[in-house]
Amino acid sequence: MTDNKQLEADFLELLKEQKAYQEALALIQWDLRTKIPPKGVDQRSEVIGFLSQKVYQIATSEKMKHFIDSLKGKASSQIIQRSLEECEEAYDRNRKIPEVEFKEFTMLQSKSESLWQEAREKGDFKLLQPYLEKLVEYNKKFAEYWGYEKNRYDALLHVYEPGVTTELLDKVFPDLRRSLTGLLKRITASDRKPNSAILQKHFPKQDQEKFTLEILKRMGYDFSAGRLDETVHPFAIAINPKDVRVTTRYDENDFRMAVFGTIHEGGHALYEQNIDQALAQTPLADGTSMGIHESQSLFWENFVARSEAFWENHFSLFQDIAPDDFSTISFSDFYRAVNEVKPSLIRIEADELTYCLHIMVRYELEKALINDEIEVKDLPGLWNQKMEDYLGIRPSSDREGVLQDIHWAAGDFGYFPSYALGYMYAAQFHQKLKETMDVESAIRSGDFASVKNWLGENIHQYGKLKKPLEILRDVTEEGLNPEYLVEHLQSKYASIYQF
Amino acid sequence: MTDNKQLEADFLELLKEQKAYQEALALIQWDLRTKIPPKGVDQRSEVIGFLSQKVYQIATSEKMKHFIDSLKGKASSQIIQRSLEECEEAYDRNRKIPEVEFKEFTMLQSKSESLWQEAREKGDFKLLQPYLEKLVEYNKKFAEYWGYEKNRYDALLHVYEPGVTTELLDKVFPDLRRSLTGLLKRITASDRKPNSAILQKHFPKQDQEKFTLEILKRMGYDFSAGRLDETVHPFAIAINPKDVRVTTRYDENDFRMAVFGTIHEGGHALYEQNIDQALAQTPLADGTSMGIHESQSLFWENFVARSEAFWENHFSLFQDIAPDDFSTISFSDFYRAVNEVKPSLIRIEADELTYCLHIMVRYELEKALINDEIEVKDLPGLWNQKMEDYLGIRPSSDREGVLQDIHWAAGDFGYFPSYALGYMYAAQFHQKLKETMDVESAIRSGDFASVKNWLGENIHQYGKLKKPLEILRDVTEEGLNPEYLVEHLQSKYASIYQF
Repeated sequence: MTDNKQLEADFLELLKEQKAYQEALALIQWDLRTKIPPKGVDQRSEVIGFLSQKVYQIATSEKMKHFIDSLKGKASSQIIQRSLEECEEAYDRNRKIPEVEFKEFTMLQSKSESLWQEAREKGDFKLLQPYLEKLVEYNKKFAEYWGYEKNRYDALLHVYEPGVTTELLDKVFPDLRRSLTGLLKRITASDRKPNSAILQKHFPKQDQEKFTLEILKRMGYDFSAGRLDETVHPFAIAINPKDVRVTTRYDENDFRMAVFGTIHEGGHALYEQNIDQALAQTPLADGTSMGIHESQSLFWENFVARSEAFWENHFSLFQDIAPDDFSTISFSDFYRAVNEVKPSLIRIEADELTYCLHIMVRYELEKALINDEIEVKDLPGLWNQKMEDYLGIRPSSDREGVLQDIHWAAGDFGYFPSYALGYMYAAQFHQKLKETMDVESAIRSGDFASVKNWLGENIHQYGKLKKPLEILRDVTEEGLNPEYLVEHLQSKYASIYQF
Repeated sequence: MTDNKQLEADFLELLKEQKAYQEALALIQWDLRTKIPPKGVDQRSEVIGFLSQKVYQIATSEKMKHFIDSLKGKASSQIIQRSLEECEEAYDRNRKIPEVEFKEFTMLQSKSESLWQEAREKGDFKLLQPYLEKLVEYNKKFAEYWGYEKNRYDALLHVYEPGVTTELLDKVFPDLRRSLTGLLKRITASDRKPNSAILQKHFPKQDQEKFTLEILKRMGYDFSAGRLDETVHPFAIAINPKDVRVTTRYDENDFRMAVFGTIHEGGHALYEQNIDQALAQTPLADGTSMGIHESQSLFWENFVARSEAFWENHFSLFQDIAPDDFSTISFSDFYRAVNEVKPSLIRIEADELTYCLHIMVRYELEKALINDEIEVKDLPGLWNQKMEDYLGIRPSSDREGVLQDIHWAAGDFGYFPSYALGYMYAAQFHQKLKETMDVESAIRSGDFASVKNWLGENIHQYGKLKKPLEILRDVTEEGLNPEYLVEHLQSKYASIYQF
């Protein structure tokens, strides 16, 4: 037992070292996306490579293996036990890939990512195609190394959303798709459409910032443990558990970008800020999955900030801060306008209803690629066809089609479903919260503390202590269920579009 | 020979690793002083400790020793040879101190630094005294370990200003002091004093920023390889050779803080931005000493930005950007006001003339401490007496006296002389440049490029390839000579104070 005590202490010390490298890397990433002058990037990339290698070396070290073998199942606390499991998974995932293949893959990734920029700008899929083909081949190989029960794609899904399978998605997605396309038809047919053009007025950046900072504060985001900066592609990042930063982007002619974007990233940040401090310096001090993380950002963005109750409270603050031009907009026109639904080609600009349809296009294609059912060269045509089938619109160039996202070019397959899962999780959490308290009244009265505390108690605090579906079940007493999302959208849009 | 080729490649690889850690540390330092939210600091300090240890481990490794022993004197390039010498010096300096003592010293430093804050606020020297006593003891021990020829203090001086000795300073400082105090008497006696109160008008931060950004740009500071941010104690930092950042502080009621402060830090940054890229990733890619670095910031601050020629060109821009209140100030009153001389208690607020007197107070005291001629407990009284002797004013509390600087509390003895050396070097470089070109006309016409290029060619490009006194001799064909500084101040103030 004394031997194990020492071993455990040494194990925690190794985790701390790994965290130190990760903290330096996180700061570098934040800086790279917010502050770094352009000429500094090349040399900084070398540092990223060097420090990432250190993290990898620890994750795959004999020392790590020794801790796992000696301590797993005998750990003196749940935190240590779960940390060992996380480390074992990372160890296996990394060690199962032959070192030479991992290196080739990494090099391919970075070449392909930078080529993607060019291919997208030119709308030239052929430029990227050979790289995508190789990246798909590697992903298939890796899936075989990692293993799976029923579907090769499961092995990739597992990386982002452990416990979620192709079987589960194939059960859930088609129903959801039918509901969404059904709703979309009724919305398109409505003659009571909101007019979002009324929102496109000049709104100076510093005033937008003033409004969003106030909302972040009201959400309970701790500014003494975080900050807000500008960037091109907004993100939230936990540099350490008490330094969780949010970034945003301002469009002076469309405040929705910054307002809803910052609240979205603020939702991610609240998650990280409220993980139990006892998990700090372990691999458990992190969101439990991409999907659960996304559920938190979407909860605040869609279930709070796009709700009627939210604007009943905040519309006057908004009008106080916004330029005079906005003063002629009625509450009802405003609320309806920020909830406009309009099929569009670009995922990251999609509305709350059509977003999941964008995800399904990607899910079906990447699953088919990994299972050898389609070929990379067929992607552009299949993409456009599916867009037409699900959203009723067709990209006129690959730039607005298959080339719009970086994920595949970065070698990430299995990631996309997390976004749609986030929508469904969020709706399930929201339903449960409604059963616990009068959420609408709380939001209307600006009482975000009770909402934040409920999320903190039920989800945030656990970090990676619980797996995504475990959290879902513990909170909602059921598994993945798309009905709540459909109900939410149905009732919301029936009121806005009056059908 | 082939063996040496491989060894050299391995040596350069090790230097790169060390630089990678240093780059991460530099970014962390910049962030710590400009952006980090307060709660993030504790955990970040752990990361600093961890990464600093990695740098130290490389510097003192057997591997490093092996490279030094095998390659020194046989290197295939001057860059490798000089890098080996730098590494050897760092190796010896670190290894000569027993590890346990180094650890104790480091812990003492950090305790003392944080205690200094409290002691300064309370004006309570007794609080800090026992720590200072220990830090002085360690410095004396370290000086003995490192060795010296004539004076124990030389060993400490060497760390900051290699080649400069106590003997040299004792030859130069007394003459300089007599000249400065003589000038100060004539200035104090003058009845044509400038009135700096006319400068203390409200000047909005964003307008001050606009003006300083424009000046930085005109100086030739490369914004694609740097940026300007706010901080409490302004500094410049080279995170990598192409990411050299400047920081500043705005006082809305006194623009001098930001304008002259930014130009000062800009001078440091120009040095780092113009070091030969062939030195990148070696220990030579750095300013050659504290004093030469300071000469570059002072060159731009005092010899350029406080000159009449500079304002002849920039006063109209200044008045365009400054609030209307400034429009009634005449050029002559303005120029004289920014060059006001007034003995004051705080070093970092001192003017161009009295600054070196502040340094001499500190130099004499620390030299005497290290040579066992005085005791720590006597510092406050001795400090106050010397201030009265040299500047004619006496601190009423230790807060404005011996406790004002962090250097001693941080364990740094031997650092202060670099500031005064910077003044003398700058004057010597300025004199040489005047012999080469019509500097005044160039500044008047806003032709900073020729000034910047001359500094780049003669000083910046070499990094640490040349030692400070070597640079001084190569540029000016003589050694340290305080006469040029005295002449510069004499002629400047004779005109401003009309004596």
